[in-house]
Amino acid sequence: MEVTSNKQLILRDYVTGFPKESDMQLVTAAATKLKLPEGSTGVLVKNLYLSCDPYMRDRMTKREPGGSYVPSFVPGSPITGYGVAKVLESGDPNFKEGDFVWGMTGWEEYSLITATQALFKIHDTDVPLSYYTGILGMPGITAYAGFHEVCTPKKGETVFISAASGAVGQLVGQFAKLLGCYVVGSAGSKEKVDLLRNKFGFDEAFNYKEEPNLDAALKRYFPEGIDIYFENVGGKMLDAVLLNMRTNGRIAVCGMISQYNLEQKEGVHNLTSMISKQLRMQGFVASSFYHLYGKFLETVLPFIKEGKITYVEDVVEGIESAPAALIGLFAGRNVGKQVVLVSRD
Amino acid sequence: MEVTSNKQLILRDYVTGFPKESDMQLVTAAATKLKLPEGSTGVLVKNLYLSCDPYMRDRMTKREPGGSYVPSFVPGSPITGYGVAKVLESGDPNFKEGDFVWGMTGWEEYSLITATQALFKIHDTDVPLSYYTGILGMPGITAYAGFHEVCTPKKGETVFISAASGAVGQLVGQFAKLLGCYVVGSAGSKEKVDLLRNKFGFDEAFNYKEEPNLDAALKRYFPEGIDIYFENVGGKMLDAVLLNMRTNGRIAVCGMISQYNLEQKEGVHNLTSMISKQLRMQGFVASSFYHLYGKFLETVLPFIKEGKITYVEDVVEGIESAPAALIGLFAGRNVGKQVVLVSRD
Repeated sequence: MEVTSNKQLILRDYVTGFPKESDMQLVTAAATKLKLPEGSTGVLVKNLYLSCDPYMRDRMTKREPGGSYVPSFVPGSPITGYGVAKVLESGDPNFKEGDFVWGMTGWEEYSLITATQALFKIHDTDVPLSYYTGILGMPGITAYAGFHEVCTPKKGETVFISAASGAVGQLVGQFAKLLGCYVVGSAGSKEKVDLLRNKFGFDEAFNYKEEPNLDAALKRYFPEGIDIYFENVGGKMLDAVLLNMRTNGRIAVCGMISQYNLEQKEGVHNLTSMISKQLRMQGFVASSFYHLYGKFLETVLPFIKEGKITYVEDVVEGIESAPAALIGLFAGRNVGKQVVLVSRD
Repeated sequence: MEVTSNKQLILRDYVTGFPKESDMQLVTAAATKLKLPEGSTGVLVKNLYLSCDPYMRDRMTKREPGGSYVPSFVPGSPITGYGVAKVLESGDPNFKEGDFVWGMTGWEEYSLITATQALFKIHDTDVPLSYYTGILGMPGITAYAGFHEVCTPKKGETVFISAASGAVGQLVGQFAKLLGCYVVGSAGSKEKVDLLRNKFGFDEAFNYKEEPNLDAALKRYFPEGIDIYFENVGGKMLDAVLLNMRTNGRIAVCGMISQYNLEQKEGVHNLTSMISKQLRMQGFVASSFYHLYGKFLETVLPFIKEGKITYVEDVVEGIESAPAALIGLFAGRNVGKQVVLVSRD
């Protein structure tokens, strides 16, 4: 196969505040470098799907090396992120031409990946390949481990999920329902709230933008309090939740998307509830749970095939659409998991 | 023994903001009620030592029933709190005249205690009896369980303790040193900092009032970051600590004394560190660990007798002195555990 050019999305410079489409630039590189170098143990791939994830905002900020759990992007170079790709050439004995893989790749049509230890081979292709950017990829293991390992849930407990229709939230809610919990989610539009109630089977859902008093909203849905809060947004929502947790409650801190674009983050005022209610709040990242990926797939693939779990994606077409899709995450424009289709095969 | 009168400290009314001595009133009650009623299963005690503890501030605030882990005080009635007492009369087969006990009693010379399940009999009187308000009482089990159970410490880890010369902090630091940790404490005066360095064996200590930039102070003492933070103060200190925690660090939230008198609590802005550093923050109260009290005594009594642990108390004499002593806690006037001596026997 002759590759003659490679469209790439470059980060122009580090970003402060709310990112804009123009922080990224589409360039077309000559593809002369798109050969696996002699003796390389990497893989050359064709990217099929790219994943837009909230944690990517942090990588747009200039950080000291080691100052965050993920390194900053390199201005002038293509953005990197999770994606699904097809192997064109391999110098790694674990992969061969024609394999499908998911993991860390570049925001470009073709990538030369040297860190192959961060790639997972895709064995089951009876499900949409794009699912490996979501339910069967990083967001899936985030939801699964975040709920089952971090929240230590029990049947019958009350569970609240913010940003509940997103890539992770929709799964946490379904895992919680499968366990027999009472599940309420918040989201930012009527369309999303309808999804939570009617498609994902949440017991209740509300639009946080229509609630002048989040504390009162939570008291309405949780008159006896919240056992488990799956935190995706931070700020005012966390403050209201702290007032409504039950004794020995658990808060799994997966994300705080409301805070990522603020230069001065909002203050959280109700942390004394941590003491009086003996709460546990735990931050986590998916990569600490990748050792559970095999077990996770064995659990979740049958759920998908039997229709016990459903998954909603928001797919845009063409690498040109990726900047708007990524930025849309922070405005809540996506409905379901945000994916960019780069190529169908 | 003929008891004819009973000095009592009454809470006048619920308190908002910073408490004042005049929120409490000394009254002398006729002691006609000071007989154990016929058939009572309670005990009549003479109070020897009363304990001043930060959590008592919360009890001065009007709360909904069940709105906190401890009920509010009752305006017009004596304040209640931990103390050491001598049994004068007992209707409970677990106690007899002459026994020394510690637990929940009243701020008065004599108390009729019906909730005897909240009393512990004192078996070892080779140590100062006042220690049962501190190192051998609620603050002791708080420090022991808070450090060993909540912080899950390992030898060689770095430990930071705020309000470190207080009833709990001084013990946490010594437990951490005994385990082989690097230990730094903060306190609010030169005298306290000297105690931390020279009496309690902390590796380092600093006066937070002399640090214009707490983040910079913590970076100076923890160039590689903090594994364990034992939180007693909250607010700005917690915010600075969050910036200096290491990956997989733990924060045991024992108290937030800087916040208790604020009508609007300070905001904590750096909670996104919970995610990137995968931190665990856990609130706890001593009463959840009373089942460990026997094991705790077996560990700590020998340490005291062998001089491996030392304990500093700030003892004022006379029940009249109790209001000023309690309020002094919130201004940091006490040096060491604040105790009120009511009677020597």
